Formats: sequence, C-alpha cells, structure tokens
Amino acid sequence: MSHNTFGHLFRVTTWGESHGAALGCVVDGCPPGIRFRRGDIQAELDRRRPGQSRFVTQRREPDEVRILSGFILDEDGETMITTGTPVSMLIENVDQRSKDYGEIARQYRPGHADYTYDVKYGLRDHRGGGRSSARETAARVAAGALARKVVPSMTVRGALVSMGEKSIDRANWNWNFVGDAENPFFTPDPASVPVFAAYLDGIRKAGSSVGAVIEIVADGVPPGLGAPIYAKLDQDIASGLMSINAVKGVEIGNGFEAARITGEQNADEMRMGNDGKPVFLSNNAGGILGGISTGQAIVARFAVKPTSSILTPRQSIDKDGKDVEVMTKGRHDPCVGIRAVPIGEAMVACAIADHYLRHRGQTGKAVGSRE
Amino acid sequence: MSHNTFGHLFRVTTWGESHGAALGCVVDGCPPGIRFRRGDIQAELDRRRPGQSRFVTQRREPDEVRILSGFILDEDGETMITTGTPVSMLIENVDQRSKDYGEIARQYRPGHADYTYDVKYGLRDHRGGGRSSARETAARVAAGALARKVVPSMTVRGALVSMGEKSIDRANWNWNFVGDAENPFFTPDPASVPVFAAYLDGIRKAGSSVGAVIEIVADGVPPGLGAPIYAKLDQDIASGLMSINAVKGVEIGNGFEAARITGEQNADEMRMGNDGKPVFLSNNAGGILGGISTGQAIVARFAVKPTSSILTPRQSIDKDGKDVEVMTKGRHDPCVGIRAVPIGEAMVACAIADHYLRHRGQTGKAVGSRE
Amino acid sequence: MSHNTFGHLFRVTTWGESHGAALGCVVDGCPPGIRFRRGDIQAELDRRRPGQSRFVTQRREPDEVRILSGFILDEDGETMITTGTPVSMLIENVDQRSKDYGEIARQYRPGHADYTYDVKYGLRDHRGGGRSSARETAARVAAGALARKVVPSMTVRGALVSMGEKSIDRANWNWNFVGDAENPFFTPDPASVPVFAAYLDGIRKAGSSVGAVIEIVADGVPPGLGAPIYAKLDQDIASGLMSINAVKGVEIGNGFEAARITGEQNADEMRMGNDGKPVFLSNNAGGILGGISTGQAIVARFAVKPTSSILTPRQSIDKDGKDVEVMTKGRHDPCVGIRAVPIGEAMVACAIADHYLRHRGQTGKAVGSRE
Amino acid sequence: MSHNTFGHLFRVTTWGESHGAALGCVVDGCPPGIRFRRGDIQAELDRRRPGQSRFVTQRREPDEVRILSGFILDEDGETMITTGTPVSMLIENVDQRSKDYGEIARQYRPGHADYTYDVKYGLRDHRGGGRSSARETAARVAAGALARKVVPSMTVRGALVSMGEKSIDRANWNWNFVGDAENPFFTPDPASVPVFAAYLDGIRKAGSSVGAVIEIVADGVPPGLGAPIYAKLDQDIASGLMSINAVKGVEIGNGFEAARITGEQNADEMRMGNDGKPVFLSNNAGGILGGISTGQAIVARFAVKPTSSILTPRQSIDKDGKDVEVMTKGRHDPCVGIRAVPIGEAMVACAIADHYLRHRGQTGKAVGSRE
Repeated sequence: MSHNTFGHLFRVTTWGESHGAALGCVVDGCPPGIRFRRGDIQAELDRRRPGQSRFVTQRREPDEVRILSGFILDEDGETMITTGTPVSMLIENVDQRSKDYGEIARQYRPGHADYTYDVKYGLRDHRGGGRSSARETAARVAAGALARKVVPSMTVRGALVSMGEKSIDRANWNWNFVGDAENPFFTPDPASVPVFAAYLDGIRKAGSSVGAVIEIVADGVPPGLGAPIYAKLDQDIASGLMSINAVKGVEIGNGFEAARITGEQNADEMRMGNDGKPVFLSNNAGGILGGISTGQAIVARFAVKPTSSILTPRQSIDKDGKDVEVMTKGRHDPCVGIRAVPIGEAMVACAIADHYLRHRGQTGKAVGSRE
Repeated sequence: MSHNTFGHLFRVTTWGESHGAALGCVVDGCPPGIRFRRGDIQAELDRRRPGQSRFVTQRREPDEVRILSGFILDEDGETMITTGTPVSMLIENVDQRSKDYGEIARQYRPGHADYTYDVKYGLRDHRGGGRSSARETAARVAAGALARKVVPSMTVRGALVSMGEKSIDRANWNWNFVGDAENPFFTPDPASVPVFAAYLDGIRKAGSSVGAVIEIVADGVPPGLGAPIYAKLDQDIASGLMSINAVKGVEIGNGFEAARITGEQNADEMRMGNDGKPVFLSNNAGGILGGISTGQAIVARFAVKPTSSILTPRQSIDKDGKDVEVMTKGRHDPCVGIRAVPIGEAMVACAIADHYLRHRGQTGKAVGSRE
Repeated sequence: MSHNTFGHLFRVTTWGESHGAALGCVVDGCPPGIRFRRGDIQAELDRRRPGQSRFVTQRREPDEVRILSGFILDEDGETMITTGTPVSMLIENVDQRSKDYGEIARQYRPGHADYTYDVKYGLRDHRGGGRSSARETAARVAAGALARKVVPSMTVRGALVSMGEKSIDRANWNWNFVGDAENPFFTPDPASVPVFAAYLDGIRKAGSSVGAVIEIVADGVPPGLGAPIYAKLDQDIASGLMSINAVKGVEIGNGFEAARITGEQNADEMRMGNDGKPVFLSNNAGGILGGISTGQAIVARFAVKPTSSILTPRQSIDKDGKDVEVMTKGRHDPCVGIRAVPIGEAMVACAIADHYLRHRGQTGKAVGSRE
Repeated sequence: MSHNTFGHLFRVTTWGESHGAALGCVVDGCPPGIRFRRGDIQAELDRRRPGQSRFVTQRREPDEVRILSGFILDEDGETMITTGTPVSMLIENVDQRSKDYGEIARQYRPGHADYTYDVKYGLRDHRGGGRSSARETAARVAAGALARKVVPSMTVRGALVSMGEKSIDRANWNWNFVGDAENPFFTPDPASVPVFAAYLDGIRKAGSSVGAVIEIVADGVPPGLGAPIYAKLDQDIASGLMSINAVKGVEIGNGFEAARITGEQNADEMRMGNDGKPVFLSNNAGGILGGISTGQAIVARFAVKPTSSILTPRQSIDKDGKDVEVMTKGRHDPCVGIRAVPIGEAMVACAIADHYLRHRGQTGKAVGSRE
C-alpha cells in the first residue's frame, strides 16, 4: 500500500478532504467487460450516507456519485461496461459548515490527528478534519461496490455485533434484518435495536460517544486466494480494515480467542463431502489457512474506538503550546462504528478482488479449480 | 506488500523453505553509513533459535547468519558499514529430518496450509511445511536487527503476556527479566514462570498445544511517522504482525477495549510539559493518532493460535479425497507463541524503519522536528 | 510503474478517455508546504493545448484545470499550499465529435491501438482512441507542473530538434525563442520556422503526417539523484518518455552516438573548479553516471513516430476479419511530435521529483550535499 | 521498479558486489509447475561468462549457479519443478583481485559511477566498481533463464549489430551463427567476424574501448500483452534495457527512423491471413501498438557506450578535490557491448514474462485468445 493507494492488481487511489470541493477515487486494474449501473454504486453509498437517523451525524450530504471514465455504455444507455481502463468516481461535498471549526484551527483535539498532522506536515486543513475525516471513506465504498462485481460468486456482508457495553445475541442473527428500514444500527439481531437505541440516546445526550465491534463475512470466496508470507489474504484484509479511521483492532476467525484454547479445540477438522468437495466441521480459521482461502466463509472483525469529537471538555494543548480545554461542537456521530459497517465490507471486498486477480495472474488457473 | 516482500523504502524480501538448502533475506533501501557487526544480527537470531528449552521444538539449527553483500568492512576488520546497496543474508538449514514428514505428503493436516497450498498451486513442498514453515521467520528477525539500527533513538521490545488460559500480572512487569536465562517464555513477570511451566508441561505431555498473546512496545519513536489513509503506521504494523504464521488478531493500544468504553474514557488528554514537549496523560491510542506516531510508546499486541501440529488425532482428508485421521509427529513447539516474541519485534522494527525513511522522503524534515 | 500510475514517492495516477466527460490525475506524495497558483498549472496546460495553430489538431479544448484537493488557500485567497495529501486535478472534455469516428468503430487503423485493444480487452472505447488518445497527456502536464515545484533549483525545458527530414541548426539554439508567439513548433532555432512551416504544410495538404525528435534538458538538478541498478535516473526518465504515445526511441546524453565512438572520446573528463565544485569538460553522459545525477544538465531525447491518423488510405482489416481500406478523417495533428514537447518536459520533471524525494528518504542528507 | 527489484508479478530482486563473497537474485511470483534443470540456468550464464575470448575481460569466474529455494525435485532427481514460492539463486565470486583497484579507491574514473556514488552515499565499495560492476548482470541472466520458461511459446534471441564504426550486413543475418563457437561477438553476420576482430584488436592494443548496438528479437509473443499508458510493453522493455550498465539509448521497432518518415511509410498495413489470423505487411512498430503486443516479433535495440575503464590516461579529480590523471588498469572488456547480448535477452524475457502474468491477472483470458 502506498500513501493513498491500496491493492496490487485491483488498485484503489482515493483523494479529497472533508471541506474541499469534492472527493473521489480512481479504480485501476478492473477487468474489462464487467457490467454495472450507476445505481449499484449509489446504493452502497446510500448505506454509508450520513444524516439517516438521529444516531449519526446530521451533516446532509447526498453523496451522489459521478462516474467519469473507464466504461462504455451498453445499448440500453444505462448499463456501464468496464473497458479495463481506470474508473474515476467523484462525489461533491455539499453541506460544509467550516465555521463550526473556527476554534479548533489552533487546538489539538484529544484522540484526533490534529497534533500528529501538525508535527508531521507543519500545516493542516483543520476544517472537518481535512483528509483524516471519515468522509474519505465514501470513496472506499464506491470502489468496493465495483470490487463486488469482480468476484461473481462472492457476497460480502457486515453487521455491528457490539456497541460499548452492549452486545447482540448471536442466536438471533438474521442477515435480512441488517438492512431493514427499522434498523438504524446494522445489527443482525432484531432484539438488540431497542437496547442499542436507549443506550446510544443516553450517550448522545450526555455529550459522550461510544465504540463498536463490526463483523464482516464474505461468502462464496473461491479456495486458493491469497499467498503465503507477505501477501496473506488475512493480512491484506487486516491491513485494509486497520486503515479505516478509528479502528484499533482486527481479528480473523476466532481471533484472540484462538490464543486461549488448545490445538484440538482450534483445529477445523475436515471430511469429504458428498459433492466431492471438502467439508470443514468448524470455521475457527475464518476461512483462511496459511494466508490462503479455504472456500469457507471469510470472517473478520474490527474494533472501532468511540468518536473523539465529544461535547464533554477534555484537557489538551494548542499550537502555541498553551494548555486548553477542548469541547468539540459540530455535527458528529455518537458512534462512528455504525457507519463503519459498509466501509468494512468495502475494504474486504477490495482485498478479495485484488487477490482474485493476483491468483489467476500467477497460476493461470480458473480460480478455485483444482485442475 | 508483494508476495515475499514487505516495506517501501526499507524493503525486505525473504526466501527459503523449511527443508531446502538454506533460507535468507535481501534488505534493500538501507541507508548508507549504518554500522553494525555480524554479532548484532546473530544475537537476535539466537533469541528466536529453536531447541533452547524443553518448551520449544527440539530441531537443532545453529541459525548462523552469513552476510553476503551491501557493506564495506571498517578498519577494525569486523564492523560492517552499509553502502546503501542490498544487504543479502543467508542461513543454512542443517538439521532436517524430512522422513518425519513421509505420511503427511498426502494428508491435509487441520490448521495447516496443506490443503490450501495444494488447491492454489497444484503441488507443494510438504517437508516441514515448506515455505509456510516458521523457519522463514528467521529471515525476518535478521532483517529486523538491521531495521533497529535505522532509527537510532528507537528500542523495540516484546513480551508474552498470556498463554492459553494463563496471563501475567502486569503489576510485575520487568523488561529486564524478559531476556533472563531462567525465563524460557519471554514473560516480563517473574512470578508467571512456574505457572506457565507447569501449564505448558501439561499441554505438551497431553500431545496438545496452546496459543498465546504477545505485546510489542517501541520506545523512542519520533512523532510524525506514518501517514493518513492507506499508509497508517498502525496499519503497516498490523499488516506485518498479521503476516506472521499463526497470528489471528492484532490490536494497537487498548485495541478491542476501545470498543467498550466512552469517548471521555478513551481520550488521551494532553498537557504542556516543562521541557516544551507535549505530555500525554494516558496512552490508549498506543502511540498513534490518525495513523501518525505521537512520540509516545508504540504498543501493539497479537494473538497466536495454538500450534496446529499435535499428537492428538484429528479428522481430515487426503489428496485423493479420502477421509483420514491425522496425527502429526515430528518436532514441534507446544506453544509457537513463545518464539513469536522476537519475530513480532522484528516486524514492528521494520515497519517503523520504513516509515522513518518515507517520512523524511516526503517532508525533508529532520524526523520529529516541528520546524 | 503500475498500469495507470508512475513514480514511487511522487506518484501520479491518471484517468480519462478522449470522449468521456473529463480526464484528470491524482498526484500523491507531494511534500507539504509547496506554494503554487492555479495559473502555474494552467500555463503548462496552455502550452500543450490543441488548436493553437494550423499545424496542430483543430479540436478546441480550453483544457481548464480544476484543482479539487490537497491544498489550503493562503491568506491572499489565491495561492495554494500543499498539505501533503493527494492533489486531484480535473479537466473537462468539451469539444467532442464522436460521430467523426463512426466508421472506425469496426475498423483497425494501422499504427493505432485498435487491434491490440480489442485482442487484449475484448472491447474498446473507439471514440477518439478512448484511453489511448493523446488527450491523456494533459493530465501528465498538470502533474509535471507540480513536480517542477518540488525541486526548487530545477528548470526543465524542451525543444523540437527535427521534424521528418528537416533538422534544426544547433548553432542557432535559443531557449527564449522556444516559447515565442511566432514559433508554432517549439523549435529553438528561429531560422528553422519557415523551413518546418513549408515542409509541414506540404505534409498536411498531402493528407500525410510526419515524425519528430524532441530534446529535454533539465538544469539545476542536484548531484546524487537516482540509484544504481533498477532505479537509475536515466532508466526512469526513459521509462517515462517511452510511456508517451507514439514514442519509439529514447536517448540519454549522446545516446546512440556513444555506440560509435571510443572510450577516450566518450569520457567526460573532470577538473576541480575554482568554487570547489567539480567541472566536467563535456557532457556525453547527459548528466547521469551509473544511474545517478552528476550535477550537470540532464539531457534526454525521444523519437515520435508520424501521426497514424492520415487521410491517405491504408490497407487493414475489421473486427469481422474482413479486408478493408482505412482513411482516417477527424481532426488530427500532422505532426504529434510538436505538442509532445511540454509532455516530455512533464515526464522528466516528474521522474526527477520522484528521485529527489527518494534520495532524501534513503540518505537523509540535504540533497546534493557531500556531508 | 524499486531500487534493486524489477517486475510486478514476475519480480526479480538482485544483490551483490563485484568483489563481495557472492551475488544472486530472488525471483518471486514464478508460476507453480514450471519444469527446469539447473543446466538451463547455467547455459545462459555460460553465454555471459567472462574470459571466453581475447575480446572480453580475462577475469576467470566459473559463474556456477546454486538454486536454493522455490522448487521440488521431480522423481528423476534432477528436474526442478517450481512451487510458486521465491526462487533464490546464488553465484559465488571466485577470481577477485582487489589490489588492482588500490589507486582508484580515491580517484574518480571518468565515465564511471565513482563520483556519483560518493556524492550520493558518502562512501562506496570501490573494488571492481562494487555494486555498479557488470557482474550484477549475471543475476539478471539467471532470472531471465527462468522467465523464458514462463511464456512457453516465446523465443528471445539477441545479436550485436554494430561495434563502433563497423556494422553488420543485415542481408547475411543468420540466427544460428550467433551462438557459433567461432563467433566471439554474438554477431548474426558471419562475414563480420574478421572485420570486428581486426577492429577490436586495434582498439584493445591502443588501450582504448568502443561501444556497440545490440538487437533483441522476441518471437512467439502472444498478442495482448502490455497495457496502455504507464505499463506499456515497450516502456517496460525500454526501462529494463536502460537499466543495464552503460546503456545510453533504446529503440523499439524502427525507433528513431520513425521520426524521419511519413505516416504512409510507417503504417504497418494488415490483411487477413488464410489461417484466420491477421497478417502485418511490415513491422515498423516492433510488434507493439499502443503499448500492447500485436503478435508480431518484438524488436528492440540498445546502444552500449564504450567501456569507461581504459588504459589511455584521462583527466579527473580525486576525493580530496585534487586534479589527477586516471589510467584504469585491471581486466576489462574492450567492448562491454559484446557480453550485453545475453543480458539484453534476459531483460526482455523478464519484461514479457511479467506482462504475460499481468495480462491473465486482469483479463482472466487465455493469453492471446480473442474469446
């Protein structure tokens, strides 16, 4: 990964700041002949879009994507077909209120990148966090929507599994509920909605914030993707998830739990299935062994820290080295982990799409074939 | 990261299999003028070396490193001075017992990369796990020993903080004890040694294995290293740690704990110190904000799964698709997490050295300077 | 270099087709604190812009650049200061006449990428050559304008030194004349203008086209840039120039002439100058020895083939494998080499800027310092 | 390309100095299942090996290659089969006479990298040119031998076409003669041998040296390899050839000649062949259009400057800034261009192999297929 680019054959470069004119991405290396519509990209962006419930920032951004290059139109005048050249996508910033940020131009907000940007670059665009704003993640989601098309058999889904001290009941897991209109949390457990709602209302009203854990599951990933040593599929997924703002931890499969159990408990035993394909009797590995996909579901989780922008005053310093108290106004998510769900999906989809192309580059085999 | 290379300006490429003639690495991009001795590299390798206690594999490998290029000798005939050209290091394999692996040439050991290698490449070097053997990590440790020299102010240390169900008492933390001759576990807590010893003896005698959690701390890292978005310092550390065999989870700072607490609790408040430098009142961030180092200690943890090679029989299949029972003989670590300590240190040192060079490339500033 | 990206620390990614909505570039890795104005970028684009004389294509594109990210505005409201984050620049396509290309949707124009695109991708955007159109080079010129700012001491200039059978007289070389309003050819020799004009009028009226040779000179490049083996400065300049459409050859310094002379003739002898700096008595090397800049002027030349789009009918085949005669209408440059001058400058500027950053990354030295 | 690495999917990293213990390369990304013997690699090295006639350096290096990783042995105990993991190859330096270089430790030889290395790195391994010695190219030749196996249909051959003022007669071109035991020049023209021999004897006895032009032809390259814009096949070939020591110019197809002719003359017309494949009526393009292979022979030429190490004294300076006269003793090739033939072949083979893998990565098509 380079500073603002990730991936090797499916390469995504993003650009843009919170309060600049626009933001966007360039997706390079997309295979030719992939058919999609603008609505496929927009639908993913709409899932991440702010302002959709009282539990997320009230900034109103339509996040309408323009697709500027890399396709020809099919005869229907609507379906786009990739040509193998770079797909450039652009989203304009509309609802900027830079004056909200007047005070913090000089103050270092605890938990934010203010101090580190200044110490690194000697200057920074303080408006809305500039480049370090979570608005950058809209570009990832757009890229991820294309990545999903690259691996036809793949479905990537995500869900919030805990928020602060509250967790879902996995027995209630229902993927269909995650996108339900009555579900502002991307939770897979219908019973958790009132719990999360009450909890987060309390947090929000107290001028506080809270963290969350997100789980991403990719089904239909062919076996054989990834590579040993420094191009492990789990490594590139971890790298992608850790690159999301506010993420402090990543797990694959049973993750940290694996460190607590024995080899017998952890082993995913195998039997031969009736269809001539191996059957794994468990999935502690999260679908990856030795850095290479097994054909089971890929499972990753990541921890998002509580939003650093809070109304509760915190001690800090300013650019002149003076002690100050910082209280962050503006419009903020009380739990940034919620909107991290589609972002996490996008990063996993991109990592798998990249390895899908790399695998067939090196081996020349139909992906997943044992021939 | 490419298949067998990591880093951008400080680039490490490794090669070699468990039962081949040798293994090694090429370190490219090392600054000129760095002084080191062969003993500096060897000392790190000796910490990772197998066969040093009954708690690790009994394979006897001297792991003597030969340094083949990239230096001139100083007048003392012993001190090497890097010239800026690639440093190639080679370690011969000595104690191979390939016949131990006769049976598993055709069987897929649960938890190992056997099945995934075959499905990916159509063939594999089954002897000792081939390229997926942890012997490859010796090359990382050699590279890490050089990386430590690149950032003069930096000290990277690691410790085992839990093994299976047993954890250290952090109140007893003593870095000096980690390398003690009476300490076969890299634990920082002297009181934990008999506990771990008894526990692991039980595991070993039962033909079982167990996982572990390792913590790496890098002190003296200048502020300003790393970069926003896809070259976050924590992301590249996570990527490096996740690339180590058997690692299933990575945390930075308070990690998954951050997802359970509020914004006020998580904020690392700042005050101005008497020396004109900022003082952080806590380090939940693990020394990294917005992907960029703060000047505090960098703290990372990773979870190592239990060794997959166990004597307890497990169900599996073979190359012909027949159901089999696998029992892995050979010489194995009952807890691979122990020897992962110097490996984790090496990966963190390499990631920081790379960002140290990248930072001064982009900004041209004396690293950590606010001018 | 990746498919649509070049450079390592100063990285340029371009996107866009001839007849799409827009084209542009993302410049990543730009150092922070670089001051520039939109007019600095636009001025370079204006030099490359079509439609400025009867000797170039009559397509009318204003090529107005929008700068979308990566800067903050100085207090004057006009000067932009880079922040170290990606600079995204966009140019809209305005004067597209896609119907000019109706016929060639199915025909393979000799010398064009039509056949090879179809055989590679299975489909192509035939309008104006799609991605293979020279319009893409506008994005390079925009990036090059920024690159010039990265190396403060550097001046990069280019000139056309021959067109078809006609060459300049080097005794008349006058850099100031290259940008003269009366000079539609970027020639440094005033006496060559009527010669080139008469010659190219003849070519144009005959429905033909002709090639050219361009020379790029970079003055003020510090010694020490580049690196041995696979990051030679001359290699990366050659790679950049060869990536320009229609370029078939590249030379550094005396180039192919070096193959015809002896070691004594070719040696650039050195003496110590009065200012304590080495003086080279000649510059056959073109300012680069062993892949590293010497401090002399960097000199590179490249050969541009004649425009492939000509009115004279040529034999070819179509998508269905039928023999056809192709006659390319539309608006074309009779000598694409003319407008290649600012493009060549941009590629050289970008290559040097990249190595400037890489050099200080690896060595940490003030560039060109011998301390 | 990185400092000591080239290629994207077929990646070659080289290391080693002229007078160090050894030199070598690591080839990463090689497809699994490729069968080769040590002799296949050695045969290519033997073609480049010094000391084989009076026209090349008398340094006696057996250049015996050891293959250390990345393969399993077939049942015959001799045939190696790649496993997809890195292939590490090592060649020991045997015949070093470092004392030959005593004087030049402090003197800057004109035309050599002595001055530029010192100014860049502040120190250098002066013995035999250190890393900038042409001995490094042995590693390229070893890698190229593997690359040839990656594209089964491909044959890469090279020939010397001119030496100083003397050129071959292309009417006499005979590929079979290039490797003839009576041919010390890699010339394809039997009639040129006595001419070159007399000419070079004169040069050698005069303590001088001379340059050469080499032509590389790759037959059997499938159409569709390469990519538009910054991954043009001709660009990557040019980059690879320009990375060879002493190369000052590169041409593809008719090269600089293209700049002198008209569009009608330059167009490679096409007709449909009887076998349903397109037939090109000429090959001015050198087998590449728009950066993508056409299926015709790939043709590249490069200019090698005269050996800089000559016995004729030249003016220069030393490390202390004093004016000196330099006369380079030691054992040198009077025409380094001769041994550049197998090196040029290797670089072209590697570039094509890399694009072969990249093409099938992005498109997933059987290479060269129009389906």
